[in-house]
Amino acid sequence: MMEGREDSDVIEQQVEDNTENSSRSLVSPAGGGRGPCSSSQRLLNYSDALISIIATVMILPVAHTKMEDDEQLRQSFQLLLTTKIAVYLMTFLIVTVAWAAHIRLFQVIVYVDDCLALLNLACMMIITFLPYTFSLMASFPDNGLGLLLFCGSVMIIGLIQSGIVLYAFSRPVLLSDQIQMSENRSSYKHHILKVIMRVPIMCFFASVISFVFFQLSYALLAVVVFLPYISQGVKWCRSKAIGHVDESPDAMLFSSFLPSEALSKERVEAFSDGVYAIVATLLILDICEDNVPDPTAVKKTFGGSLVAALQVYGPQYLAYFGSFATVGLLWFVHHSLFLHVTRTTRLMGLLNTFSLAFVGGLPLAYQLTQEFPRNSRNELEAVQISCVIVFFAGIFQLSIFVVALFSQQETLHPHVRHGGREHVFMLAKLALYPCVALTTFVLTCFLTKFSASIFHLMEVTVPLAFLVLRLSVRLGLAALRHVFCPEALGRQSVLEDVVEDNVPFNT
Amino acid sequence: MMEGREDSDVIEQQVEDNTENSSRSLVSPAGGGRGPCSSSQRLLNYSDALISIIATVMILPVAHTKMEDDEQLRQSFQLLLTTKIAVYLMTFLIVTVAWAAHIRLFQVIVYVDDCLALLNLACMMIITFLPYTFSLMASFPDNGLGLLLFCGSVMIIGLIQSGIVLYAFSRPVLLSDQIQMSENRSSYKHHILKVIMRVPIMCFFASVISFVFFQLSYALLAVVVFLPYISQGVKWCRSKAIGHVDESPDAMLFSSFLPSEALSKERVEAFSDGVYAIVATLLILDICEDNVPDPTAVKKTFGGSLVAALQVYGPQYLAYFGSFATVGLLWFVHHSLFLHVTRTTRLMGLLNTFSLAFVGGLPLAYQLTQEFPRNSRNELEAVQISCVIVFFAGIFQLSIFVVALFSQQETLHPHVRHGGREHVFMLAKLALYPCVALTTFVLTCFLTKFSASIFHLMEVTVPLAFLVLRLSVRLGLAALRHVFCPEALGRQSVLEDVVEDNVPFNT
Repeated sequence: MMEGREDSDVIEQQVEDNTENSSRSLVSPAGGGRGPCSSSQRLLNYSDALISIIATVMILPVAHTKMEDDEQLRQSFQLLLTTKIAVYLMTFLIVTVAWAAHIRLFQVIVYVDDCLALLNLACMMIITFLPYTFSLMASFPDNGLGLLLFCGSVMIIGLIQSGIVLYAFSRPVLLSDQIQMSENRSSYKHHILKVIMRVPIMCFFASVISFVFFQLSYALLAVVVFLPYISQGVKWCRSKAIGHVDESPDAMLFSSFLPSEALSKERVEAFSDGVYAIVATLLILDICEDNVPDPTAVKKTFGGSLVAALQVYGPQYLAYFGSFATVGLLWFVHHSLFLHVTRTTRLMGLLNTFSLAFVGGLPLAYQLTQEFPRNSRNELEAVQISCVIVFFAGIFQLSIFVVALFSQQETLHPHVRHGGREHVFMLAKLALYPCVALTTFVLTCFLTKFSASIFHLMEVTVPLAFLVLRLSVRLGLAALRHVFCPEALGRQSVLEDVVEDNVPFNT
Repeated sequence: MMEGREDSDVIEQQVEDNTENSSRSLVSPAGGGRGPCSSSQRLLNYSDALISIIATVMILPVAHTKMEDDEQLRQSFQLLLTTKIAVYLMTFLIVTVAWAAHIRLFQVIVYVDDCLALLNLACMMIITFLPYTFSLMASFPDNGLGLLLFCGSVMIIGLIQSGIVLYAFSRPVLLSDQIQMSENRSSYKHHILKVIMRVPIMCFFASVISFVFFQLSYALLAVVVFLPYISQGVKWCRSKAIGHVDESPDAMLFSSFLPSEALSKERVEAFSDGVYAIVATLLILDICEDNVPDPTAVKKTFGGSLVAALQVYGPQYLAYFGSFATVGLLWFVHHSLFLHVTRTTRLMGLLNTFSLAFVGGLPLAYQLTQEFPRNSRNELEAVQISCVIVFFAGIFQLSIFVVALFSQQETLHPHVRHGGREHVFMLAKLALYPCVALTTFVLTCFLTKFSASIFHLMEVTVPLAFLVLRLSVRLGLAALRHVFCPEALGRQSVLEDVVEDNVPFNT
């Protein structure tokens, strides 16, 4: 036992060392000279957590829309549900646009003091109010109030952010080192202010126009919110199609602070983690609240048998574990992917947003699959919708990787680039969910009777598939090699190199 | 514009550098040699996010308990509410105990590969189920099922964690460097396994006993869950009272892997951020779901006036902004405090947990203050409850700092220690909320008629108070100096040193 004790001491020492190191990296490197300001890391983590919760909040009204059995009401119900889903998707995109602006701002301001932290909290408070204003707009499209509230919120956010920029430039120690040392700091400040105030000013015009002509102001808002993404996407396609295009200063002014600046990888990860965590626990929130039976009801209806009372909720538990496992595994794939990403371009960020938006709908789809009687038409639809959602969530993750491969020198670690050691394995991981979802979808079209069984089978096999993925990729590659180039078995080919390094867990 | 462009290029370069640096720190330092394993940072962030959501989930049933106006029902209602609050607090503590165990485990295992990530997800899935089993136990104290489910979950968690330990020790590259290099790795493994399996084995006995004698197994569970904290607290008090006490190997075996090991500061921060973020947005979740009026109802009841329809919800918006601001500012104080903490002892972690548990109840208390008619007895009670909750949330934060000061050499940065530059300012920040809450509470006792106005005044003044805190601390100290030692004005005293370095924002 004495030996064990010595060990412990060594480890304790190391734990202390770690703490020391990390706390050193958290406060500003310049130390005392910067006085009461510090690295913005934790402020950004908290902001990311808030924004990820807010982005997914509008899925709750969708979740709690109860299906009517009445055929007559069904049409109006479907319209309501479609509206709610549209609101969810639009809110998700709008909030992520606000989040991207927040990232850009804090790539320029890298240290925070108390005043900045408080201003940022005020900004967050207004951002968390955006989904509600948007949902008012969707429920009352003919009433100007929702539009005015939305525009008002955006204008306040713009003013607070301008305040943040002015404050930070008045105390240059807060800025990133390169701006601090640059000579034309003030021209830089004006540029950033222009970019920040552009959206609020357009919102101001939209709110003025709304008193006269509604449709125009909605169109204006749509342009304002999504143009950066659209222009970025078009630019990327053009540059891939006809080679590198020189950025004009105008385009740069319009799209961002910096022409082709990357999103901060840590913040994309933190935001994604927040969304995955909220979505994974969405169903347990409902279960904890609604599915604890009432003691008197248990006595009356089930003769005091708690087991019988809980059996009623059985499908809900199944739905919870199924959706937690699926969301968890999608997070796992995302985690594996971003271990190998060195730089997140804006297009990759956009694809990530789309993937997350689909992940948000997943628990509800899973819940629906358990809600209907066996072999009903509704059950089949619910299973198929679940497959579609899983498919799109997975396919957008895959497309992040594909887009990253296009400019792999900048965006990927060497060992996952074309021909790199981990390349095949990464592709297999990313392709697993889309393939399984597609297969399940096709199978349920033919074997409608067994749709639920097929779906449950999928839920169980996928986690196992992830466990044996390394092994099966290795076997698959070996088989391919055996079929296509049996004479290469003795030589050291590229494929073999790939395979050898993919030994499940080299000892 | 050309000059601005050059600036941008410099910054872009820096952004790339940052990305490069951080990604380098995220993957294992040994690089290719470790093969497919990586630093566990993001896995831990995701786990922290999940656990913080789960810890606060049981506040929702409390939130949605509707107050009855009937006097007869009131007694049974209060009993129900008390039960729910007790369930919330106990769940919070139980989940944080599971979280502390998770921290300890991943202080030993510092790198993860795919298999470990999947095992950890499975473990998380069971942990998220704990609150529900506990809430069953509370609703049906005489039925063994809740207890059995709880014990079953704990046993499964124990088995999975043992699996994680066995797997990690079979591939030593995953372990922290010191254990990797140590010679008696296997004795270390046995020690950790013993510690991990202790709680599940006691749960096994509790579940066996539950078939015979209920009360005993509840007592056993209480001992199992809270003994580590109680023993740690007693030990700390004793060591402060009679000097340093030698740890016996038995005590070490019982309390933890390592006798007085610290909690990882980053994980305490990540967990706290998660709780603060969830709690801050708790009310907006309800608002987004319930407070969008129905278009037909607006036409019928309010003659189509949306503004009139929304005015009904006015108090809820106020409650939201009030609670967001309070939770945000408590986060801000927490953030300031942990900037100066270098090491989190277990006692500090426990106090942090208590503070967070009170923060969780805050939005509901704020919501209650807006729910009752003006000047009613209920309103007064709601305002006072809010003050009590804010007071305790703040006082536990303050006590973290006080406890840290007891062993300041290990736990605090030099400039916040006794007499350090930031010491007074930090104390003022931490004391602000408890003082304000206490003052408001006392005032409402005397001026019962104006309780709501006093409360709203507090909500508005506190954020302003934080903005001018540096200035007022400086003025306060100068006044003190002027009164008590006017002759020291010319000399360079310790106090002056403190004051000079506290200039709001040195240019």
